[in-house]
Amino acid sequence: MKLLEERIRRDGRVLGTDILKVDTFLNHQIDPELMLAIGDEFAQLFADKQIDKILTVESSGIAPAVFAGLALHVPVVFARKNKSLTLPNGVWSADVYSFTKQVTNHMMIDQRFLKADEQVLLIDDFLANGQAVEGLLTIAQQAHAHVVAVGIVIEKSFQKGRQILNERGLQVESLARIKSLNSEKIEFMSS
Amino acid sequence: MKLLEERIRRDGRVLGTDILKVDTFLNHQIDPELMLAIGDEFAQLFADKQIDKILTVESSGIAPAVFAGLALHVPVVFARKNKSLTLPNGVWSADVYSFTKQVTNHMMIDQRFLKADEQVLLIDDFLANGQAVEGLLTIAQQAHAHVVAVGIVIEKSFQKGRQILNERGLQVESLARIKSLNSEKIEFMSS
Repeated sequence: MKLLEERIRRDGRVLGTDILKVDTFLNHQIDPELMLAIGDEFAQLFADKQIDKILTVESSGIAPAVFAGLALHVPVVFARKNKSLTLPNGVWSADVYSFTKQVTNHMMIDQRFLKADEQVLLIDDFLANGQAVEGLLTIAQQAHAHVVAVGIVIEKSFQKGRQILNERGLQVESLARIKSLNSEKIEFMSS
Repeated sequence: MKLLEERIRRDGRVLGTDILKVDTFLNHQIDPELMLAIGDEFAQLFADKQIDKILTVESSGIAPAVFAGLALHVPVVFARKNKSLTLPNGVWSADVYSFTKQVTNHMMIDQRFLKADEQVLLIDDFLANGQAVEGLLTIAQQAHAHVVAVGIVIEKSFQKGRQILNERGLQVESLARIKSLNSEKIEFMSS
């Protein structure tokens, strides 16, 4: 997605060897018009799928997911993260390790919001090592829902997330795929 | 807002004497089309204001805020909640007590995203005792930004939040104002 790549080049900040900060438009400050365009792009990419529901995870997944939901005319459910050891009753849940923050969180959704045989599209802001998406997959599996595809705003293609998901036979569509990054240059995979 | 009141009557669940669960369309599962309508309604209500930025708090504030941002053509910043005792550098922050969860959280935003003299609209999903909005006001004050108004999706008018904000001279616009609730009936303030 050209518009997104341009925005990443313009506003993205690279920290160290593998961290890309896009907090000016995606995950702290949000550009609503860009989110609208992102939602439309996801809707086009998944136009041939039967999708009942979008599943994402708080907080940064919410904005892109809700615009994808608008364009695809389906509800969005966001998993909540929870650090406490005890989980409430009636939830599907997964443990998710964050490499960035070096903590393990639970992620959970109320069982009322994901049912057997529902066709689910997973959306998230970033795909790096694939931990968050794996958590959502675990939750979908618990509910016996069917994950039809995965939509990612920014994929760090030099990390192992996409490979893991492809090996599971999942279709992954990322709107920007970063081949490599350093403080001088952000290089995208050629589309 | 008629559409919202109808949705609350249809899907809202009352727990105990003062808790209203709207997790089927607002703060766990999200109805994107309703969020679009909510954003448009906020834009109409605040059409006469000069607004540079919308400020909200994760996670449930994000969807209504980002659609208001779309309709008003301004960026949205969401404050992050943080339970750890140490705060990162370069943030504006406030302590916020949640009566529902009976915990104190920090709420914080990167100082790069709120500047002196910016005209800010605060948006949140619920107004009950006003703690979350007071946290956002504290943050705005630290940044020397100017809060022009407060937009709330659902106000529990029988709790003290609105009164506190009105006493501070703030304009508060709530799309649904709940006068009272119990397991049999949800009553709205007449508009």
